[in-house]
This record gives sequence, C-alpha cells and structure tokens, in this order.
Amino acid sequence: MDKFNFKISKKSKKSQARAGIINTPHGLIHTPTFFPVGTKATVKGITPRQLDEMNIEAVLCNTYHLFLRPGDKIIKKLGGLHKFMNWSKPIITDSGGFQVFSLGFGMKHGVSKIVGSNKKNTRNKNTEQFAKITEEGVHFRSFIDGAKHFISPEDSMKIQENLGADIIFAFDECTSPLSSYKYTKEAMDRTHRWAIRSLKAHKKKNQMLFGIVQGGEFKDLRLASSKFIGGMDFDGFGIGGSFGKFEKKIKNVLDWSLEYLPETKPKHLLGIGSVKDVIDAIKKGIDTFDCVSPTRLGRNGTAITAKGNLNLKAGRFLLDKKPIETGCQCYACVNFNRAYIRHLFQSEEMLAGILTTLHNVYFMDKLMKDIRKDILKGKF
Amino acid sequence: MDKFNFKISKKSKKSQARAGIINTPHGLIHTPTFFPVGTKATVKGITPRQLDEMNIEAVLCNTYHLFLRPGDKIIKKLGGLHKFMNWSKPIITDSGGFQVFSLGFGMKHGVSKIVGSNKKNTRNKNTEQFAKITEEGVHFRSFIDGAKHFISPEDSMKIQENLGADIIFAFDECTSPLSSYKYTKEAMDRTHRWAIRSLKAHKKKNQMLFGIVQGGEFKDLRLASSKFIGGMDFDGFGIGGSFGKFEKKIKNVLDWSLEYLPETKPKHLLGIGSVKDVIDAIKKGIDTFDCVSPTRLGRNGTAITAKGNLNLKAGRFLLDKKPIETGCQCYACVNFNRAYIRHLFQSEEMLAGILTTLHNVYFMDKLMKDIRKDILKGKF
Repeated sequence: MDKFNFKISKKSKKSQARAGIINTPHGLIHTPTFFPVGTKATVKGITPRQLDEMNIEAVLCNTYHLFLRPGDKIIKKLGGLHKFMNWSKPIITDSGGFQVFSLGFGMKHGVSKIVGSNKKNTRNKNTEQFAKITEEGVHFRSFIDGAKHFISPEDSMKIQENLGADIIFAFDECTSPLSSYKYTKEAMDRTHRWAIRSLKAHKKKNQMLFGIVQGGEFKDLRLASSKFIGGMDFDGFGIGGSFGKFEKKIKNVLDWSLEYLPETKPKHLLGIGSVKDVIDAIKKGIDTFDCVSPTRLGRNGTAITAKGNLNLKAGRFLLDKKPIETGCQCYACVNFNRAYIRHLFQSEEMLAGILTTLHNVYFMDKLMKDIRKDILKGKF
Repeated sequence: MDKFNFKISKKSKKSQARAGIINTPHGLIHTPTFFPVGTKATVKGITPRQLDEMNIEAVLCNTYHLFLRPGDKIIKKLGGLHKFMNWSKPIITDSGGFQVFSLGFGMKHGVSKIVGSNKKNTRNKNTEQFAKITEEGVHFRSFIDGAKHFISPEDSMKIQENLGADIIFAFDECTSPLSSYKYTKEAMDRTHRWAIRSLKAHKKKNQMLFGIVQGGEFKDLRLASSKFIGGMDFDGFGIGGSFGKFEKKIKNVLDWSLEYLPETKPKHLLGIGSVKDVIDAIKKGIDTFDCVSPTRLGRNGTAITAKGNLNLKAGRFLLDKKPIETGCQCYACVNFNRAYIRHLFQSEEMLAGILTTLHNVYFMDKLMKDIRKDILKGKF
C-alpha cells in the first residue's frame, strides 16, 4: 500500500477534529471533506469539468447500482470507473451493503430510502421483501428488471475491484433503526464475519479498503463493533447505520462507534449530509462524508445556505435580484439571480436543477474547506 | 440604427451563398450561422458558459413563452433578457406569430408542433381551437393555465422591446401547409398589414426589426409577399411558414420568397434545422437559422453527425469506446465515449441529454463555421 497514506496535519485542541490528507493514486484528498455522490457514475446534472472547476477532490459512486447497470465487468472492459465517467481524481465506492437495508428490511419497515423513491417499483412497495440475507451473502432482485442476484462479501470485493475506485468498503449489513436489539446484534456479528472475509478477499493493492462499524443505536453493540472492526487491518473506517430515526442519538452513536478506532486512520461517516450533523461529526473526529442530499435537494428546488434551506420555487422570489446566497462564489450565485432560477423551476427547465445542484455541492465543499482552514489555524 | 449594420464579406460565385457579419450592440454575428433555441430563456440543459466555450454567438428565445412566463414586464424589471438569462451576446426573439399557427390552425389540422408535445394539453388536442385570429390580432389561451390572452402587432413589438433582444421579428400569421389557397392569401395579406403596423409601432432604436415573408406553398403568393415585405424598411427579413409538409417544395418556396428581398440585408430562415435543408438554404442566400432540433434530438438520445443521426440508446454501443463522432472537438466527444453516454440514457441521467445536446449544438455551429470558411475561400 505504498501509494496510500493518511497524514494528520493538525488536530484541534478543543475537540477531536483534525485536518489531514489522504494520498491516493488519483490524487490527494484534503480532509475534512464531503464527497458528492455519483450513484450511477455521474453526479446528477453536473459535468466532471464543473466538479473540477469547483476543486471537488473526490466523488462516491454506488456499487449496487453500477453492478446492476451497466455491470462492473462492462466498466472494467471500458477501462474502469475513472475512465468510464471521465473523472481522473479519487473515487470511492460503497460496498452495496446499504441496499441490504434499503431493499430488504428497510422496505419491510417502511423506512427504505431506495424503493420508495423508485416509481417503477411502487407496485411492490411494502408487499414483498426484495432481499434475503444469509450467512453467505445477500439474495436480492434488481430494481431495474426484477432479476435475481446474489452478492457475497467476496463478490463485493471483486465488483469493487472491477470498478477500480481508490477507496472501497467492506461488505456490511446496515440494519433498520426499527430492528430489535437481538436482530441488530445478529446482523452486527455477521457484518464482523463479512469484514474478515472482505479483508481476506481483497486482492487489489492500489485500493484502500475501509471496514464498517455497525451496531444500531445500542451502546454495547457499537462499542463491540468499534473494538472488533477497529482491531482489524483496514486502511480506514466507515461508520454505518441509518441515523435518520434517532437524530438525537447520532452524537452518542458516533462516540461509541469511534471509541476503539485507531486515531491514525481516516474515518468516514456514511450517508450523512446535513450541515449540523456534519459539523458535529467533524468535532468527533470524522474526516470524510458522503450524502445525496446536496444534489437531491438541488434538483428538487432547495438550496442549502448558511442561513438554512431555501425553497427556490417560492413565489416571493419572482422579482428577487439577489443570488441564491449573497457572497457565494459558485457559478450559479455569481451569474444568476433567484428570480431567474425560480423561473427555471416553474418552467421545469433542466438548468434549474443544474444551477441549484452546483450551488449546493459548492456550498458543502466550501463549508468543509473553511472548517479545514479553521482547524489548521487552531480556530475550530 | 447606427449600432447595427450587416456587411457581406464574400459572395460565392457558384451560388447565392454569402459570408457576412451582423453588428449588434451585444457583439458580432458571423454568418452563415445557426442560433440554438432557448425557448424559455435557457438553451435546454446547457449553461451560458458552455455555450460561450463553444463560441456560440447568439441564441433565439420565444416571445410567446416568455410573455406567458415569467412575463415580459417581469423580465424588463429584472433588467431585460440578456441580464435575466446571463447571456451578454446577441439574442433574437421571434414574434410569437408562430403560435398563431401552432395553437390555432396547426392544431385543427393536426400538424401542431406545440400542443401535441405538451402533455398538459393532451385533453384538448384536436378538440378545441385555442387561437382566434382577427384583423386586430390574436386571441388565445395560455398553454400553462388556460387563461385568455390577446396579442396585436403593437403588443408584439412592445413585448419584444420589453424583452430587449437585439433582433426581433414583425408579428405574422404562419399558416398551416394544409390551408387552402384562399385562406393562405387572406392570412398573407393580413400579415402584410401587420408588418406595416409592426414597423410603425417599433420604437426601440437599438433593436433590428425583421419582416417576415409568408405565402404558403403558392408561387404567386410567395412572390407577392417577397415584393411587399422586401419593399419595406425592415433591417432584415425572415422566411416564415411550415416547410414540414412539403419538403420537396422547400427549395422553390425559398426561391420565390427571396426573389425581391434586397441583397444587402440579412435573411433568416425560421425554424428549419436539418443539415441538408440548412446547406440548401445557404446556397439560396439565407444567412441565419434557428431550430429546436439539435437540442430536442440531443435530449432524446439522438446525436447529429456528418454521417447522419445516431441513436445513442442503441444496445450496440454497450462496449463502444468511440466518441459520439470521431474527430469532433466538443466537450462530449473529447471526454466521453458512446458506451458511457448510452449508460447515462439507459439510467435516465441528466448528463445524457446534456452531453448529447452539447455535441449537437457544437456540430451545427461547426458546420456553419466550416461553410463560412469555405465561402470566404471561394470554395463553397
């Protein structure tokens, strides 16, 4: 793993926050940072050049979606994910394990993020369980055509090797926040066994492999998972689990999850993206984040600003000559006003979502860069 | 009109083709050229910066749509169309007259371009006439909310002055290709009277006003319209009419329409955009074009190439590493292959339409620049 390393440039004195640099074969990632999500090998509505112009350093793609379409083998034949999507900077792929949650128990519990948002599957919503978890791996049906598939930890490693991201994740089971203690423990123990298998199966030398801490909302489970996963020879660590149903507990869950993870390694918080949560998590020692919220909110008309979210479709912006956020240096704010962007949303024009997404991605990135500066100055 | 002029740089010896320069307050337009269409003050899916990077010199927006939403008065309050859409180069607006055709008789005849493509109005398709034409102007209903509106030639001038484009058009009635000789003549005579009223009503000094030749597919009417409109003090001329139903006649119709137009003034062919038609029309002496086809085709998966149209959704591109068009220097072709763009279309990703639209707009612009070079070299 000569090509990889993680250096902590500065630690905060008042919290666990730190500024660091992850060195990958496709370039540096300055932390803390937020990875825009490009689920299907594209950050929705944004060109790689536009990401590059904002100095975005890395994007996260979803293994599950790319496995199903166009297929990891196809992407490998086309030269790997970097070449496929024309992104020469670092790429992260998740393990596909989140879909165990979102297509399996998540759906059963009515808290799925994925199936509910897919119109084509509406007929099946809450009527059929899509995923079946065994010790060996996960059986599931494609969200595209309903075809049966199976992914084991070994498969996940092979798929992620074919995709060729710089940072990949061990295969895990992400339980629902509504799962019982008993089930959450079973799933966590399985995730630990899968972590061992993932680490063993991972062959590619120029990829960092991150282990994932699970354990739901339960203190003893989170501590146990932190100890187990933290004791393994991973290149970094992810904190998994849906935090959506127990927002107030997120800080505790983070504390427990991070308890036994080695300080010297990078730590990623999976799928969390609100400004408040991100700032809190940085204080706990989280280095990197990913979440669809900046792009999803942007497409749907909501801009993220320092003063809170802004619904750009609102009638009060009819004649508003101000940019989305005064002082923001993103392409949207420098060049367009709220009145125009509102008009674009009213008219259902593509540019509406493009501009608002550009702003939101820029906003999150700028927030992280500012925090990094503050940490380096000892002011965070 | 000091700020405006049209200079013919070079004439072809073998045809009526010419290379020229239209000088507007917002910059030069080198002809022949093709204006991408930004119906609702945005070229669908493309940022002004992306247009500028391709050296696009001018865009055409639709008066009818902007009158209805957000409204020409709103745009005026926001500083005019250039500022509103952040496009500092020349803008052209049509007169709104095409909608007389597409929402009135066009619909009655089932050849509407507009209503048929608007899902919200499907219930009304072919069952109700939306527009009523009187000597005074046109009564019609909004495609957005069904509200009643009226536009006269004087209104069209006022609306286009509020929008503030560099080149505007006289208010005309565009008859259906299925209209009788009798009706086509009536409409043409009315268009001539409206041309007089448009010219009289036009107050703004820093806008070129183009008159429109009509007359359907009938030789004597086209010649009469060419003589009448060509004899008026317009800054340039547009050739109107739907050519869709009589493709073979387009060359004759063009000949008749251009017969009496002064050679020294710029000539625009409204709404025609196929590669073949554009080349034929340049040979007849047409200087500028506009059409939604490059953007509409692009959004829907069809790329325009020198070898014909390419359906990028086709399965045969699954592993195709070639760009849309080999040798093309557009952003899409330099950076992405067909396999990736096909994947984006399969996945219904915004970037699919963005990249293909970028290619199509670049292709049409490059075609025109190449033709211009050939004319200047005396090789066209």
